[in-house]
Order: sequence, then C-alpha cells, then structure tokens
Amino acid sequence: MSVSVWQLSAQEKKVSQWERFEVVLHGSAEGNPFSDVSLYADFWQQEGDTVSVQGFYDGDGRYIIRFMPAMPGVWHYATKSNLPSLAGKKGNLKCVAAPTGNHGPVRVKDTHNFMYADGMVYYPLGTTAYAWIHMPQSVQEKTLLSLEKAGFNKLRMCVFPKNYGLCKEEPEIYPFLVAKYSAGKPVFDFTRFNPAFFRHLEKRIGDLKNLGIEADLILFHPYDKGRWGFDSMPRETNVAYVKYLVARLSSFSNVWWSLANEYDYVASKTEKDWKALIRTVVASDPYRHLCSIHGSTATYFPYWMEELTHASIQDEAPVEDFGRASIVRNIYRKPVVFDEVCYEGNLSSRWGRLSGPEMLHRIWQGLIAGTYVTHGECYQWNEGSMDTIFWAKGGEWRGESWKRIVFTRSLLNSLPQPLQLADVSRDHRTATAGDNYYLIYFGRQMQDEWLFSLPAKNASCQKVKSGTKYKVEIIDTWNMTVTEYPRTFEVGKTIDYRHYDVNYGKVRLPLLPYLMLRVTALDE
Amino acid sequence: MSVSVWQLSAQEKKVSQWERFEVVLHGSAEGNPFSDVSLYADFWQQEGDTVSVQGFYDGDGRYIIRFMPAMPGVWHYATKSNLPSLAGKKGNLKCVAAPTGNHGPVRVKDTHNFMYADGMVYYPLGTTAYAWIHMPQSVQEKTLLSLEKAGFNKLRMCVFPKNYGLCKEEPEIYPFLVAKYSAGKPVFDFTRFNPAFFRHLEKRIGDLKNLGIEADLILFHPYDKGRWGFDSMPRETNVAYVKYLVARLSSFSNVWWSLANEYDYVASKTEKDWKALIRTVVASDPYRHLCSIHGSTATYFPYWMEELTHASIQDEAPVEDFGRASIVRNIYRKPVVFDEVCYEGNLSSRWGRLSGPEMLHRIWQGLIAGTYVTHGECYQWNEGSMDTIFWAKGGEWRGESWKRIVFTRSLLNSLPQPLQLADVSRDHRTATAGDNYYLIYFGRQMQDEWLFSLPAKNASCQKVKSGTKYKVEIIDTWNMTVTEYPRTFEVGKTIDYRHYDVNYGKVRLPLLPYLMLRVTALDE
Repeated sequence: MSVSVWQLSAQEKKVSQWERFEVVLHGSAEGNPFSDVSLYADFWQQEGDTVSVQGFYDGDGRYIIRFMPAMPGVWHYATKSNLPSLAGKKGNLKCVAAPTGNHGPVRVKDTHNFMYADGMVYYPLGTTAYAWIHMPQSVQEKTLLSLEKAGFNKLRMCVFPKNYGLCKEEPEIYPFLVAKYSAGKPVFDFTRFNPAFFRHLEKRIGDLKNLGIEADLILFHPYDKGRWGFDSMPRETNVAYVKYLVARLSSFSNVWWSLANEYDYVASKTEKDWKALIRTVVASDPYRHLCSIHGSTATYFPYWMEELTHASIQDEAPVEDFGRASIVRNIYRKPVVFDEVCYEGNLSSRWGRLSGPEMLHRIWQGLIAGTYVTHGECYQWNEGSMDTIFWAKGGEWRGESWKRIVFTRSLLNSLPQPLQLADVSRDHRTATAGDNYYLIYFGRQMQDEWLFSLPAKNASCQKVKSGTKYKVEIIDTWNMTVTEYPRTFEVGKTIDYRHYDVNYGKVRLPLLPYLMLRVTALDE
Repeated sequence: MSVSVWQLSAQEKKVSQWERFEVVLHGSAEGNPFSDVSLYADFWQQEGDTVSVQGFYDGDGRYIIRFMPAMPGVWHYATKSNLPSLAGKKGNLKCVAAPTGNHGPVRVKDTHNFMYADGMVYYPLGTTAYAWIHMPQSVQEKTLLSLEKAGFNKLRMCVFPKNYGLCKEEPEIYPFLVAKYSAGKPVFDFTRFNPAFFRHLEKRIGDLKNLGIEADLILFHPYDKGRWGFDSMPRETNVAYVKYLVARLSSFSNVWWSLANEYDYVASKTEKDWKALIRTVVASDPYRHLCSIHGSTATYFPYWMEELTHASIQDEAPVEDFGRASIVRNIYRKPVVFDEVCYEGNLSSRWGRLSGPEMLHRIWQGLIAGTYVTHGECYQWNEGSMDTIFWAKGGEWRGESWKRIVFTRSLLNSLPQPLQLADVSRDHRTATAGDNYYLIYFGRQMQDEWLFSLPAKNASCQKVKSGTKYKVEIIDTWNMTVTEYPRTFEVGKTIDYRHYDVNYGKVRLPLLPYLMLRVTALDE
C-alpha cells in the first residue's frame, strides 16, 4: 500500500479511500532529525478545506508523510519543512472508492454506538493481548491465527512492553534507541525513536486490519516498575513520543488511541498530565480516531472531556447483574465500552478467574443495556511468568468463551439497529433493536416458562401496537442454538405498562441458564 | 432577625453568623422599580475581600439588601444604585458567633458528602412536598408539624404552583402581579413581582430553617401546561425571576437551588437554556448555596458542569438493588442525591406505589453505597385531585416509611464518618464508616446465619488487621431495633481478599428482611 511518489512521479498516483498514501522524502540524517526537523504536508481537494498531516523521520535520511484520504477524488498536497530539501514538494493523488471490505475508521454513531465511516454499524467485540507484539515472532503469528479463528473485531494492546507478575519477557526491540547497555540492561536515548520498532508495530496493526480488527492501542501503562522507564519518561519525551506515534499511525484506518491502561496506577502522571496528553493526541491526529483512557477498577476518568470519543472503563460491577450498565450509558452520552470486567481464567487473583459462561454473561449484560464489553482470558497451566496467557501475550486460546464470539457477533449483525433497553430503569431484561425487534435476556436465571409480555414503552422507537403478531426464537447464548418457538403470539391492549398475548400465552423454556429470546413481528 | 439599620442607625447593629442582616432603604416607587432600579451593596471585613450582594425591590418604595455574614467580626458596607437616594449608604454591623443549632449553609464535604459550614457532617434525608406553599394555610401548618414529627432534614419544594393530575389547587397568591383577570383567570404582568408572594415563601423557608430542614427549592417545573404560563415565560423574565429570587433568598442559610424538576419535560427550554440559567443563579449568589437540577427518570443532566455542586437525580434503577448506586458515585466525583426513586404510595402509576419497606430499602441502598436518597409518599384515599397527597401538597402522613426517618438519621449521626463501600465493585453489601466501623446491609435477603467476614480492603481507611476483635449489632432497619450480638469475633489473616473469624464464627440472624449489621472494633 506504500506508494513512494517521488520515485513514481511520472505515474498516476492512486490510493483507495481510507487506505494509506505515502510521501517519502530524502534528506539529511545529521544532528537529531527526530527533534530537529519539522515536516508536514497539507492535503486538499478544494482550496480552503485542508488536512494538515505531520511527517516523521524514519531513519537513514528517510522522511515520510502518510495520508489517509477520506473522500474519493483528486487530492493535492504540498510539503512544508524547516529543512529546505523537504519543503515545497507538491503533487497530486487520485483517491478511488474503497475496496469491498474496507469500511473506513470507526466513528461514534447516534451518541451511544459505533459505525464505520461508510455508515455500517460496528459492534465492538474485542479481546485483550497487552504485550503480544513483544513476544517471540512465532507467538505473534499464533496470536493472529487465534484472533482470526475467534472472530474478535477489536484488540486492546500496548505499545510498550509489560513487566508484570505474569509477563516478564524482554522484548527483541524497543521504541527508543538503546544508547548503551549497563549491566546487561538497555539504557535508552529518549530523544531518538527506533524506527524499526515502529515498523514492526505498524506491520502488526496492518495484520489486524487485514483481519477486520480494530487496534485499541494503549499508549502508556504502569506495568514497567523501573525496568525500562517507559512509564516515567520526562514530559517532553511523552509529548514527542505521542506525536511521533500519531504521525506514524494515524493513517491506519483501524487504529484507536487508548491513552493508558490503569492510568491512575501510573505514579508519575496526574490527571492534569493525562488531559494534556489526550489533547496532544487529538490535536496531532488529522482523522480524529476514537480516543479514550482506561482506569483501574471503578476508577472513572472524567470521560465527559470533549476530546474523548467514548468511555473505556474498567469495572465489573456494571455488567455482573441486571440494571447496572444502562445507568452508565445514561450518564455519559457517549458510547460506553467496559474494556475490563475481569477475565475468564484460572488465576488466584479475583480479576482473572471468571468461568467462560460468566465472561460471556457479562458481555451480554453490557449488550442488552446498550453498552459494549471486552473479553480477555488468563489461563495459566504452568507455574511462573513464562507461561503464555492470552490476556498478556497472545498465543493460543485455552478458554471457552472465545468460541462464542462468532455466534454472538452474528446475532448483533442481524439487528436492525443497535440495542438499548426498551423501558429504561423499569425492565432491565428487554432490549429493543427498533420497531418490533426485541432481545430478552434471562442471564443466570432458569425458568421453565415465560409469560409472553413486552413493555409498552420502546425507547424512542415505535411502541407496541395492540394486535401485532410476534414470533419467538429461543437463543441459547452459551450453547449457540437458535430455536424457533412453534407458536406465535398476538399482543392485546396495554395493561399496567405492558402488553400480554391475548390468550396469555407462555413460552416453554428449557431449564438452562444464559437463554435469550428474540421476539420479532411476523411478516404478514 | 430583620434589622432595619437606618431606623436603628444610632444603635449597635448585631447579627449572628449565618443569620440575616437587612439594609432597608426607602426610595421612589415611580416607574417599574423591579426593572428600572439597580441596587447592591459591598460588604467587607477587610478592604479587598468584598462580598457583593444584590438588593431587591419589596414594593411600596421599599428597597432591601440582605446579607448573611459567614465570619464573625465587624463588617462594613456601602450601597450602590442608579437611584441617588439609595446610593452611597454606609454602615457597620457586628457579626457574632452563631447560636447553638445554627451550623450554617450546607457545603460539599470530601467530594462525595455534605457538611454544614461549621464542619458538622450533614446526612441528607429529605422528603417531597412540591406545592405545599400553595395550599391553604391550615394545610401548610399541618405540613410543618408532619415534617417535624418525621424528622426529615431536607424538603423538595417548588416556587411555582403545580397543575398536575393529582394537584389542581389554585394558589391564593402568585409570584407575579396580576395585571387583570380574563374569564376569571389571572393574566400576569411578568415585569412585576409580587413581594407578598415572596414574603410568604420566605416565611416558609424560615419555618423550615427553624426545624433544621434544608429547603431544596425548585425554580422551574413543567407542571403548568398553559394554566399560568410559569413554565414558558420569555427568557428575560426567567433571568429577572432567578435574580430576584436569589437576591431575596440567598441570605437564608438553609436554601438550595434546584433549577428544575424534570427539566427535560419543560418544552420551552433547551439544555443550553438550563445551563445559562444555572450560570445566572450561581453568578447571582454570593454564598454559593448548593445547586443542582433534576430530570425525568434516567435523564441525567451533565452534572459534571462545574456550577453544579451535586447530582440531583431521578432514577430508581440505581437504588433498587445492590451494586448500582456506587457506580453513579464513582462516576460523578460529586455528592449524589437520588431525589426521586419512586414514592411510597397507592397510586396506579408505577412511580407512586412503593410499599413503605421498599421506600426505606431504597434509602438504605443509596446510603450503603455512599449516596443519598430522598423520600416521598403518594397515598390517595379519595378519588380526584382535591385529596391531600403529601408528595404534592404536604399535609399529614399516611404511609409507613416516614416513621423510620428519626431512627435512620440516628444511625447515620453515630457514624464516625460518611459511608462508602469498603471493597468497591467487589462487595456491594459492606459499607465502611472509617477504621473498624462497618454497616453490612442484607436488603430483601433473609438468611438465618451470616459467616462473619470483612473485606480486606477498606476504601481509603485502615485495612482490617489480623487479631482485631469486633462486636456485632443486629439492626432491623424496618422495625427499628438494635440488638447486640452476645458473642464477639476475632479476625484471622487475609484469605482470598477477606478476613474471617479465627473460629469461623457465625452470626445467627432472625429470618427478617431489611436487616443490617453494625460491626465495630471492641474497646480494649
């Protein structure tokens, strides 16, 4: 996808919508080009409507400007730089319609949900592999195969390596150049990035893109503890790092910015520091990719900050039981993603020992309330930090809930519109997906029958009309079956805020947990 | 308390801290003094540290400036006005220490709680009588007796009368002057206030103050429906009304500003309008009384707006069950008051038919999560709108939950510090009130024994220490009994995030709902 236009200046320069166009320039490698050289380009279709894009130094005298056109048509560009050899370069490119399967970057849809730039609804169903790009290449390849097999469409992953009880691997390559080794440990030159590291990161983000996976990229985290010092770099280094990262990566349509994992555990930074870094990211990103930040359990950042596109929350309470997640949705007026709700696993730590069914249950608790939940698994079979636990390292799945993701996504993808509670704060089980389309989730509750009834209220959609006939499908979310119920139902008039079947008909249910009903109007 | 200093100019002018000092001036009554005359006074103890206080026109050529001194000592003042006869008046007053029982206005304490200005913790336990000041005087007097008997310390009440299905009374007196009557209905001159109305309102706020009750005063509401037009006045009238109200009332230490009830149902105003009105209130109030706004069910105003001191929420979901209210607390970083969570009553509407125990249960659900809940009751014995329902009109109690308020407050007042969950998002039943002081609430769950255990985590307080001995009291929140358990417990080491009694001792419980345990360290 990389098009070096100066080599190809005589040819037609084409790029697909939401793909990457590169201007590669050559200049001096003297001094410190990372800090000494400023470079950017303006891109425009019509004068006055300009996208300004920062370039970056890629090493070996190579300077790159990357552009992701959002609109088909002819774009013009011109570079500016304090290095005369890089300044004043002009050119054109032709942006052609996106190929099938490229829907563009994910945006916020209708306050609480997500869609791709082409308008297709995006239902995030992500997982977690924080340090996967720092593992041996063979593990990384396995991770990609695992992600493809499971069908996740978002991955929480860190730029920096992880030094944590269960993840101690030394990376092969670092984001900063190693100035020297001291007692076998790298000492970094924080003024010089390591382009090879970023090329590797880009390759992996590209690999995810090919799998339809959004890279929810975590820029900082506290799991360093003095080992490399990436959690406690000077402020100007943090800013330079963020700008360099954004200049390199913002042309990837599938990148999201997650300023931190467990931001409040990063001892060196205050909330004010985080806000400044968030503003730096947003100001540097010409495409306004999704941007949020993640705290420790029940630590809610002020997600109302306008630069944040959504709330990326660690808290299990909202998705453990009914009646909770919708409160968070009602408060924020932004999409809510519970990005950490404990993980499926067998650890002794309480955050890493959910059963598979409980992990999936939490995902559905979020979904029926109009929010989203991220998966993770933490199975440890061997003692010690070298075991491969997907949540930290990627590798191979060992749990059970990942096997339900394709099925879960298929249920979501067949919705006419995103879910929300039909009768908010009154009926915590009935989600509406529009006119005459309901999912009713029973969670851990088992019962052998359900008296057919729908709330009269239906969010902002069409209310139930007396006389409407419905069919019912029994969905076993865990066993992944959809069974159409052999009879249909016709609702009568409103009785105490609800509509019952005119004959008070019931749905007989198998005595199983995690059942859901799909209730839809009969085609007539 | 009113001291007319110009009549008393030769005497010593004394006022107690947080009480009211009045400067009464006489001037022209020509034109429209409500809109034509500007009047304010600066009050100061030391030059440069000035409190500016707006005056107001009280009718009959009488102009008043009211001041509530926050600090004992000598205060000086000087008036300014566009009316020469009101300008340049100077004087002194001596503020003496507050009398016992006057703790000053309520402020925010430690992010999530409240205290009086003198530092005493204030635990809001309020009720609701929206239109009580518009009822016949005999009903108003009964209301005061009822409030005193029940022991509430906050009252939600409206300035404007209410035109609602269950409350249709025509007031005796209106906030605006009646220009004429048209077909028997008053037509208001929205440019002229009715001082007699406001004197009545002030009398009632003063009556509440004498009972130790905060007046949570609702400035606008939607329950008008074209009858008087107070919900759809022109913007400049709204602003003038707010300023007049604040000028008259801000010297009452027990006033809170609630911009609206169910703000989103007021069709004539947008969220932007509300924000502007909130800013007007706050800019007009020299004392910065508590200020919030209340929406319809599950409609959350952006309570993070810095002018709002706390979140005043209508939503029942957060206090119906465990694990919910604390989420709201964690998000806002302000005190959370669930000011409407449905009411005890016998109405057919689902918002007005809680049982007494359920009303009290919701109050405790809020309290153990470190939030606050407001009571209300809606019993209708006779058909039609002229029945006296406390929630709308005040009068006499008919329910059951009000009888538990004194007991509930006594439990709160004996806490060493306000409640919060000890192990947030993990243990939804155990609230801590500091070091070695816990309330463990079981809600609707009945059980005949409880295995003694405390979470190792204790919010930001001292963690449980192995070897500590505790006593347990069984509190029946509904039947209002406190029974000391006949044995004590000693905790062992941490086992999976909890501390058990060294002999795995259990507390035998009566099979009753709404029980709570008070677990405190033994004095040794």
